Amino acid sequence: MKRRRSIITLTTDFGIRDPFAGIMKGVITGINPDATVIDLTHAVEPQNTREGAFILSISKPYFPKGTVHTVVVDPGVGGRRRAIAVKAEDCLLVGPDNGVLSWAFGDVKRAIIRQITRPEYIRCSVSATFHGRDIFAPAAAYLSAGVPVEDLGPAVYDPVMLPFPCARESDGEIRGEVLYIDRFGNLITNIRPKNPDSVREVVIGTKTICRLSASYGEGGRGEAIALVGSTEFIEIAVNLGSAADELGVPVGEEVRVLL
Amino acid sequence: MKRRRSIITLTTDFGIRDPFAGIMKGVITGINPDATVIDLTHAVEPQNTREGAFILSISKPYFPKGTVHTVVVDPGVGGRRRAIAVKAEDCLLVGPDNGVLSWAFGDVKRAIIRQITRPEYIRCSVSATFHGRDIFAPAAAYLSAGVPVEDLGPAVYDPVMLPFPCARESDGEIRGEVLYIDRFGNLITNIRPKNPDSVREVVIGTKTICRLSASYGEGGRGEAIALVGSTEFIEIAVNLGSAADELGVPVGEEVRVLL
Amino acid sequence: MKRRRSIITLTTDFGIRDPFAGIMKGVITGINPDATVIDLTHAVEPQNTREGAFILSISKPYFPKGTVHTVVVDPGVGGRRRAIAVKAEDCLLVGPDNGVLSWAFGDVKRAIIRQITRPEYIRCSVSATFHGRDIFAPAAAYLSAGVPVEDLGPAVYDPVMLPFPCARESDGEIRGEVLYIDRFGNLITNIRPKNPDSVREVVIGTKTICRLSASYGEGGRGEAIALVGSTEFIEIAVNLGSAADELGVPVGEEVRVLL
Repeated sequence: MKRRRSIITLTTDFGIRDPFAGIMKGVITGINPDATVIDLTHAVEPQNTREGAFILSISKPYFPKGTVHTVVVDPGVGGRRRAIAVKAEDCLLVGPDNGVLSWAFGDVKRAIIRQITRPEYIRCSVSATFHGRDIFAPAAAYLSAGVPVEDLGPAVYDPVMLPFPCARESDGEIRGEVLYIDRFGNLITNIRPKNPDSVREVVIGTKTICRLSASYGEGGRGEAIALVGSTEFIEIAVNLGSAADELGVPVGEEVRVLL
Repeated sequence: MKRRRSIITLTTDFGIRDPFAGIMKGVITGINPDATVIDLTHAVEPQNTREGAFILSISKPYFPKGTVHTVVVDPGVGGRRRAIAVKAEDCLLVGPDNGVLSWAFGDVKRAIIRQITRPEYIRCSVSATFHGRDIFAPAAAYLSAGVPVEDLGPAVYDPVMLPFPCARESDGEIRGEVLYIDRFGNLITNIRPKNPDSVREVVIGTKTICRLSASYGEGGRGEAIALVGSTEFIEIAVNLGSAADELGVPVGEEVRVLL
Repeated sequence: MKRRRSIITLTTDFGIRDPFAGIMKGVITGINPDATVIDLTHAVEPQNTREGAFILSISKPYFPKGTVHTVVVDPGVGGRRRAIAVKAEDCLLVGPDNGVLSWAFGDVKRAIIRQITRPEYIRCSVSATFHGRDIFAPAAAYLSAGVPVEDLGPAVYDPVMLPFPCARESDGEIRGEVLYIDRFGNLITNIRPKNPDSVREVVIGTKTICRLSASYGEGGRGEAIALVGSTEFIEIAVNLGSAADELGVPVGEEVRVLL
């Protein structure tokens, strides 16, 4: 096995109080000492696969081709859900087959998906509760070292796909929702307008925001603004404040964009 | 001094708001640029040496031979407690001589234990409050670069040992306690049954749980279950919930296993 | 472009729940796979440039010469503030031109300061909200790979400087303030006495502490003590407790040292 300087990312709901993420890194470096491990986050809401899928999907474009993204948000650990490895167009993916990887598949017809079953690529003793350590970390390490995804186990043709909540456009209006709330309290929606200049109003709850701003600083202190964020989705923000707190809005809240 | 690609782990109570762990990494990479530093956790409860000892003991088996584990949970910093480095059977250990390393010693009679005193292996100016930066980080870096533990200072024959709270078995019953509560609220006990199939009941507080489950998912939503966790100790969990919250139980609470 | 094993530090207010710091690391490793990225903290209080400046200034001395320190505490992102790169005496600095880097400049007359504008050293598409990803991470990665700071853009002769809150000495008294409160609740002041032995009393709020202690452990449980901390500034601590909680004192509170 050739050793290669390659990148593995970790996205989990393990938190950072326990040593679980560190233990995964121990297993990885034991197999491929040349891997560079990068944490995306360990603060996914416990067992929230949709949040894990979102975080991976907005992060993936900024990593080099060939990066191995590992996601462990795994309510079904120890049960019958499969462990899978995926060769997508521009990256490799490792995680449970519960949809958490599916927003990163790219064209699913061209993705190569394998169940992780070959004993030489997992730990010899697999616990019922910590597949991050016993299955996903070893699989990611072997992939990063150049083992082909096809070697890990049998083909999977029916991976669990999480439906992406698409915004719907009709009659000069786009209806979407809040997908994610970041640490600053910015509300990230699922709305990517083709032409941002055409946006007349953004409506959320009882709040109506006129036009899109160009940057956070354009609002007065405490004023709610809407802008195209770094994810290219429309975000609702409050200058020097938290839109989530000011508007009292949860993930899933409807957002309407009037064109 | 030969430079080597080797692993150093950090376990501290520094938290992650302050730059203290990052400063230790700056000192380490200044001495051995080829070291790979892995965080186990920086969220040990302040000055809780027993929690630090537990975290190291459950993490250590998953790291390659020769890893340098560095633990800084150090209520006696600046006082008379010694700083020690240990060559154990399968790893190296660095930290204060207050017992925080002792659960990782392995066979203490075969461990080589040295006080860290040689000025060439510590910072030239040692503060009274941050030995992580001034003593432990340099010592770990030099060890990772191949300096023998014997070079660091005089032998220590009476290291402070923290008693491990062993479970006691008698009359078809094992009495133990809750050792640690993880981020999911799972209660990790100090009970490792020889034969998990022989377990009839697990009793904690007023709660009695029949037999061991095979995985978290076996319980109904909100139901308390017991299972052999990833540490091989019995854990008490609540499916899709927190056992710590549901049962209102602290670290140290008695747990009884009826065989 | 030569690739070099060099160090990049990150200090941000991004928190660790979102993948923003991980995304910056993806961009960095895509440009310089040999860079070692070290987190100082991602928990700067949102948009508190003074806290970011303080953290960088106390961390910098412990990193090897040539380290690239990257700070993203950036209330003006997307507005008119410049992005700058700095070659200081012993390190390189990257961040917004809002003063957050200025306590690390060293002798500002000898520092080489450039605006980051050259398109080959930033992402081809720059968002209005995430310059950490689009400008600062690429600039840091290119600098770490050996690109001269002069190549990044035009010279800046009037960088924004944050005034350092200097303590003032007169009539046998030094008047300063609390600069920072660490995770243990220790109050770090801006007072560095020339001769610690000359300190007779430290006064904060209604509390008077006699003389400096040599270590945290010198106080009785719950007793407030003062000592020269690891930053060389006077700290006020409570043995086995939190001085911030016990004394109820915020950042900025006046501290007086009587000589």
